[in-house]
Amino acid sequence: MTGPVPPPLPLIDEAVRRALAEDLGDSGDITSASVVPAGAQSSAVIAARTAGVIAGVHVAMRTFNLVDDTLAVTHRVMDGVRVEPGDVVLEISGSARSILAAERVALNFVGHLSGIATATAELALIIKGTNAKVCCTRKTTPGLRALEKYAVRCGGGVNHRFGLYDAILIKDNHIAIAGGVGPAVNAAKANAGHMVKIEVEVDTLAQLDEALAAGAHIVLLDNMDPAQLKEAVARTAGRAVTEASGSITAAKARAVAEAGVDLISVGWITHSAPCLDVGLDFTSGS
Amino acid sequence: MTGPVPPPLPLIDEAVRRALAEDLGDSGDITSASVVPAGAQSSAVIAARTAGVIAGVHVAMRTFNLVDDTLAVTHRVMDGVRVEPGDVVLEISGSARSILAAERVALNFVGHLSGIATATAELALIIKGTNAKVCCTRKTTPGLRALEKYAVRCGGGVNHRFGLYDAILIKDNHIAIAGGVGPAVNAAKANAGHMVKIEVEVDTLAQLDEALAAGAHIVLLDNMDPAQLKEAVARTAGRAVTEASGSITAAKARAVAEAGVDLISVGWITHSAPCLDVGLDFTSGS
Amino acid sequence: MTGPVPPPLPLIDEAVRRALAEDLGDSGDITSASVVPAGAQSSAVIAARTAGVIAGVHVAMRTFNLVDDTLAVTHRVMDGVRVEPGDVVLEISGSARSILAAERVALNFVGHLSGIATATAELALIIKGTNAKVCCTRKTTPGLRALEKYAVRCGGGVNHRFGLYDAILIKDNHIAIAGGVGPAVNAAKANAGHMVKIEVEVDTLAQLDEALAAGAHIVLLDNMDPAQLKEAVARTAGRAVTEASGSITAAKARAVAEAGVDLISVGWITHSAPCLDVGLDFTSGS
Amino acid sequence: MTGPVPPPLPLIDEAVRRALAEDLGDSGDITSASVVPAGAQSSAVIAARTAGVIAGVHVAMRTFNLVDDTLAVTHRVMDGVRVEPGDVVLEISGSARSILAAERVALNFVGHLSGIATATAELALIIKGTNAKVCCTRKTTPGLRALEKYAVRCGGGVNHRFGLYDAILIKDNHIAIAGGVGPAVNAAKANAGHMVKIEVEVDTLAQLDEALAAGAHIVLLDNMDPAQLKEAVARTAGRAVTEASGSITAAKARAVAEAGVDLISVGWITHSAPCLDVGLDFTSGS
Amino acid sequence: MTGPVPPPLPLIDEAVRRALAEDLGDSGDITSASVVPAGAQSSAVIAARTAGVIAGVHVAMRTFNLVDDTLAVTHRVMDGVRVEPGDVVLEISGSARSILAAERVALNFVGHLSGIATATAELALIIKGTNAKVCCTRKTTPGLRALEKYAVRCGGGVNHRFGLYDAILIKDNHIAIAGGVGPAVNAAKANAGHMVKIEVEVDTLAQLDEALAAGAHIVLLDNMDPAQLKEAVARTAGRAVTEASGSITAAKARAVAEAGVDLISVGWITHSAPCLDVGLDFTSGS
Amino acid sequence: MTGPVPPPLPLIDEAVRRALAEDLGDSGDITSASVVPAGAQSSAVIAARTAGVIAGVHVAMRTFNLVDDTLAVTHRVMDGVRVEPGDVVLEISGSARSILAAERVALNFVGHLSGIATATAELALIIKGTNAKVCCTRKTTPGLRALEKYAVRCGGGVNHRFGLYDAILIKDNHIAIAGGVGPAVNAAKANAGHMVKIEVEVDTLAQLDEALAAGAHIVLLDNMDPAQLKEAVARTAGRAVTEASGSITAAKARAVAEAGVDLISVGWITHSAPCLDVGLDFTSGS
Repeated sequence: MTGPVPPPLPLIDEAVRRALAEDLGDSGDITSASVVPAGAQSSAVIAARTAGVIAGVHVAMRTFNLVDDTLAVTHRVMDGVRVEPGDVVLEISGSARSILAAERVALNFVGHLSGIATATAELALIIKGTNAKVCCTRKTTPGLRALEKYAVRCGGGVNHRFGLYDAILIKDNHIAIAGGVGPAVNAAKANAGHMVKIEVEVDTLAQLDEALAAGAHIVLLDNMDPAQLKEAVARTAGRAVTEASGSITAAKARAVAEAGVDLISVGWITHSAPCLDVGLDFTSGS
Repeated sequence: MTGPVPPPLPLIDEAVRRALAEDLGDSGDITSASVVPAGAQSSAVIAARTAGVIAGVHVAMRTFNLVDDTLAVTHRVMDGVRVEPGDVVLEISGSARSILAAERVALNFVGHLSGIATATAELALIIKGTNAKVCCTRKTTPGLRALEKYAVRCGGGVNHRFGLYDAILIKDNHIAIAGGVGPAVNAAKANAGHMVKIEVEVDTLAQLDEALAAGAHIVLLDNMDPAQLKEAVARTAGRAVTEASGSITAAKARAVAEAGVDLISVGWITHSAPCLDVGLDFTSGS
Repeated sequence: MTGPVPPPLPLIDEAVRRALAEDLGDSGDITSASVVPAGAQSSAVIAARTAGVIAGVHVAMRTFNLVDDTLAVTHRVMDGVRVEPGDVVLEISGSARSILAAERVALNFVGHLSGIATATAELALIIKGTNAKVCCTRKTTPGLRALEKYAVRCGGGVNHRFGLYDAILIKDNHIAIAGGVGPAVNAAKANAGHMVKIEVEVDTLAQLDEALAAGAHIVLLDNMDPAQLKEAVARTAGRAVTEASGSITAAKARAVAEAGVDLISVGWITHSAPCLDVGLDFTSGS
Repeated sequence: MTGPVPPPLPLIDEAVRRALAEDLGDSGDITSASVVPAGAQSSAVIAARTAGVIAGVHVAMRTFNLVDDTLAVTHRVMDGVRVEPGDVVLEISGSARSILAAERVALNFVGHLSGIATATAELALIIKGTNAKVCCTRKTTPGLRALEKYAVRCGGGVNHRFGLYDAILIKDNHIAIAGGVGPAVNAAKANAGHMVKIEVEVDTLAQLDEALAAGAHIVLLDNMDPAQLKEAVARTAGRAVTEASGSITAAKARAVAEAGVDLISVGWITHSAPCLDVGLDFTSGS
Repeated sequence: MTGPVPPPLPLIDEAVRRALAEDLGDSGDITSASVVPAGAQSSAVIAARTAGVIAGVHVAMRTFNLVDDTLAVTHRVMDGVRVEPGDVVLEISGSARSILAAERVALNFVGHLSGIATATAELALIIKGTNAKVCCTRKTTPGLRALEKYAVRCGGGVNHRFGLYDAILIKDNHIAIAGGVGPAVNAAKANAGHMVKIEVEVDTLAQLDEALAAGAHIVLLDNMDPAQLKEAVARTAGRAVTEASGSITAAKARAVAEAGVDLISVGWITHSAPCLDVGLDFTSGS
Repeated sequence: MTGPVPPPLPLIDEAVRRALAEDLGDSGDITSASVVPAGAQSSAVIAARTAGVIAGVHVAMRTFNLVDDTLAVTHRVMDGVRVEPGDVVLEISGSARSILAAERVALNFVGHLSGIATATAELALIIKGTNAKVCCTRKTTPGLRALEKYAVRCGGGVNHRFGLYDAILIKDNHIAIAGGVGPAVNAAKANAGHMVKIEVEVDTLAQLDEALAAGAHIVLLDNMDPAQLKEAVARTAGRAVTEASGSITAAKARAVAEAGVDLISVGWITHSAPCLDVGLDFTSGS
């Protein structure tokens, strides 16, 4: 219980192998093969260029070792830790060719995931002291969802469902087809398994009442302003988890959180967080 | 020669299948299975919520049809086209359950790729009228490089090498190991194939002279200010392609371009472009 | 909402392709290649040899069509339907070689899955009229879990969690490590996501009280006799879903169900149900 | 030559990885992640709960080590050994989280394969002292054939062909298409390779004569009663291997074997054997 | 029964997809993308440049259609047919870009497989009129064995075992370990299944006697001269299939065949046959 | 910079795993399982039977270790080294069963790749002392291109492009569609990336002039006789790399090389080189 638990190792390795195949192709690193002697040894560090929260250290370590399992790779910070510019994240030593072959893939993972962790942490800081937590969505980069949801946890956020398969979220289109919030929730309760939670998106307080009456476990309060949210939380009165969503920018987040909701869910921490700037520097070489 | 050519279809399908597996898991869309009748038919559109340049229409079409090949899917705009808020990108009709099962994956692809195309196009607009083109890097999202490089082309940019395997780029660490720009370029020329271009990163005009004397095909002018770049272009005198790089923000780009370089390469159009906001709306249902 | 929803098609196809590869190897059906003329056309049916509940019709249909997409395959009963000996499940016509190449794999799927559906339905019949439902476990055949859980639904049962990833089930070993039922449930509530349900296994009424006080969503009443179960249900008083487990044979099930629990979970419907006897008969050939 | 040889390791690993992916999904064991401290160490054993013959020990060992290669895993019995209730099969020690993550998959493999070995061994015991051996069929669980055929060997049985690809078995439908037993066997001899054995299913003594005259290597005596089998064995007079099949229950097996056949082939040892009850118990923990 | 039966379609498609991925990479055919208009339509033929026996027509057809399923592809000759220079094998029409993208992979398959078929056919012609058939070995190109063995059949040869898994071949190293030909064959008979044939390599007539006495099904007469082979065939007297092997060149083959053996097995028809020269010509274009 | 750099290790392992799966199937080496005791230990060598240049030593080493990572495998020569008959390439010791299971796959790789290296080296010897180098093409065995191109490097040759994706080669069909050499090269220059080289095939000196005027980087002089080639080289005057192709046999190669071209490209070194004869001999066994 020290820090977030990463996705299963086979999933990480599969993502790393795919990225390495993408970068190495059939002929590998032809620059190093032409310019760097086969026996050259080097030491290098991955360091932060800007401040942020790190995620993906283990992924980077696997990247170096899947290229060359004789590389010595040591982490200097754990995932979830805040770094300042210049802080060293990882140390690598061994074959210069191997380090160069893995460099870009390792940096792309750490930069991308740390960007998400950093955006999450910044939002978490904004709402600090309230009851609310930052929550992610399914608006993730195709193929990287498990890692991105892990990065959200590294940044101090919590995860929403992982896919369409592990929880029920009834949205506007479902409600329209089912003929209302109540009928939709009732259909879900009748048909879904007992191990599955049911959430329903509501746009109005009337819909909220209907959702609560039907026994939804979580209510997604969509596009409500702080006053509406406050009223919604009051009406819910602990009968369901309350989640606010809908274009919640950093500027709006504090007011939303102070309305008393349990969760603020935002897509942009996964789909639009800028990369954290990290780089690799050689510290010695032969 | 009408619009950029997308990656090979098997590559697109593999990316789509991976993203669908990630979202559908072992039990599929349990919300729709519980709430939406099996026979329900609907029509829906994917439309832009904000202005931008579209990329990934074909990917979205494959997403719907890999979920259900009986869905009718028609594109209303082509990749590379600029859209305004409300513009319809795709129309889909058929099984409501199938549309809902594919919705999020399709949107994630279009949003992510259109975000890259839009960022590229914005930068291209800034440097319009100069000799320079916007160019991407290998700083891409792991597993999506071919699609992201395609999105850059949709935005009016050009592609740098696709990986370590298809061109030589000699950077600072290579130069240090090889003992200078000249020896590094010479090693590359001696060892690399005749079908491979050689680029070398230079930080100073002295290095530039060395690179040109050694016969580099492209020179990467790293972190030079506009005045230095102008001098570098003058010295190069057409003997090599000139590429400027190094923290070139939108604010700096015009001045860099006006220095006369052929290419401005930026990592942020692929690693930090925010998602373009696109959404799916049901237009009818039964 | 007509019958259980099968797993996603790509998952079914992957299972079928794997089974076909296992049976066809590198050289295919060498018997038919030697004995059956290339152009021979036949019609055949898959029929039940004993009574039971059918599951896997769609899987069998995919099997024939992944061997040869020109085969005409028509189902005569839907998954979840009870059949008597001699009832026709599927009709196939086309190339005799193709029908023979797919026969065994199709039968193995239908026999295995219908065996599970039948065992489930038999147990469901035994507890008919009570409040309880038949529920499966993670004691499934490696590689076939999604299909086996679907077969349970076809037999009228409900599904427990699909894996370690989609719900929390705190068992004896977790309780021992966490230092008791209460601390374990509290740790789960503190660390797990809001979209995840929490179940805890209790062996005694004292543990049950602890679980309910801590707010478990589901209580797994393990190895309790009907009298204890009745007391447990009474104490629970609707605060949690009640699930009985632990060597519940067909002989014991009615008494367990009448104790008032919501669910009876049994491993043997998935790991030990005998195959339903189904066979393929040629009805004509040229 | 000590005990049956298991399938190739890559095949075992692939089956284990698939089963682990099925159980761990994208987020892994969320119960242990929430309740068990990261550093907790434990020891555990897998022990038999009922008597039977063990198969799958190596598969279970790979399961633990593919989850975590730092787990110490030691087998206490070999595959093919008979165990009594309480006998320890495997000992595992190391990270408690890793043991719990692998537990169910390891048990599902050992339980399933040992169930097959046990059913085989029970049948083998019934026919002990006769000339006959227990033989499996292609009626196996999709995706697990190689492991199930290995389990049959662990139980003292022998294997029939592995698929459609490695031997010829001419059945009723082939005979009908070919125009008789003789023409079918002759076609097989003319067209099949010299490394391939030819078996033919016969329903009558007349067909048997035809098969022997045509030179079949093995005759499958289908649905004959013991008297007919005795006559069939006598007529065959060593010219072919004799295999009895067709609804041979444990009750009928002795009489069939005493008729003098070489092999008794039964589908139910692979498709309908109940799981052997095995469980994992923690023996210590920190 | 018209022509050899090709390997299962999924196996062919997997080989084709792998070859296409190898040729198209992440960016596809960048020449056609740059030079050929998207809408250009063409017709083309694949024709033989030298005489030979064709194999791989279906593989080539799948290649074109896996690149673009709108291409019209028609075969003009079947696998196994002898062609003269200029004979058209396949006709293709449709998108010029698609034809060019598939061209080289299709030609590589047809050229490689037809080379094997042609070498086989040439050897078959040399031994025409004798009792012997041309037989292949396991000396095949890694990854292409099933297709190469099919090409041998197209050339009029027969197949030896497909791998280590489908038949027993006891060679010198096994004999040394087992302590002689007799013990080795006896061990095989005791341990191998009844559906498996047993072959043993013998270097001398004494070993041959031992093999026959032990009941080997096939004897591999290794490196014997025609006189020895004649004596070996006489001693065998129909008790086993006789197979000659060991550096049997085209020049030696007739004498070997006339010695009366059933089979002449040669590695070079699969591992060293030169490619048949085939080319693609555009017949029209727009 | 000591010897050619092999393809990325994951690519090698994937090729080896595929070949092992092909040879071992579902049941593995049934001969050794029947005849060789489980504990038997042996030592063996792979040695050349004929003279040639070795390629694939690392691939063979991986083959043995992917079958059994406890085998001790030591190379005695490096790839690219010339061997004489009897020279030992590899030494292996450990489990006799494991050595026998890997033997054929290891030999098939070494034989095939060394055959290519040897053919390349023989051609390189013929043109020794001229300016020309031996160059490969895309006429490779499907699925093995990266390894075959590596074998060409081991033989002293150089590589042409790896696929359609990494360089532009404008051929006769492109020229016809584009309307001439000039327009085709101009289209390529306009549309292709700056990191991509452009080659154009020319059949006449007039086309050569057009290609040079348009700025092609490499000119493929197709089917020209030595006199034409000499003139072509003279006209090119260093403005482009010159590559001769078109049915260049060993007999013609010297004259072609003496015409002054930079490269001689031949398909037959990859598609038609006979296997180098290598074998495995046991040196001791228990």
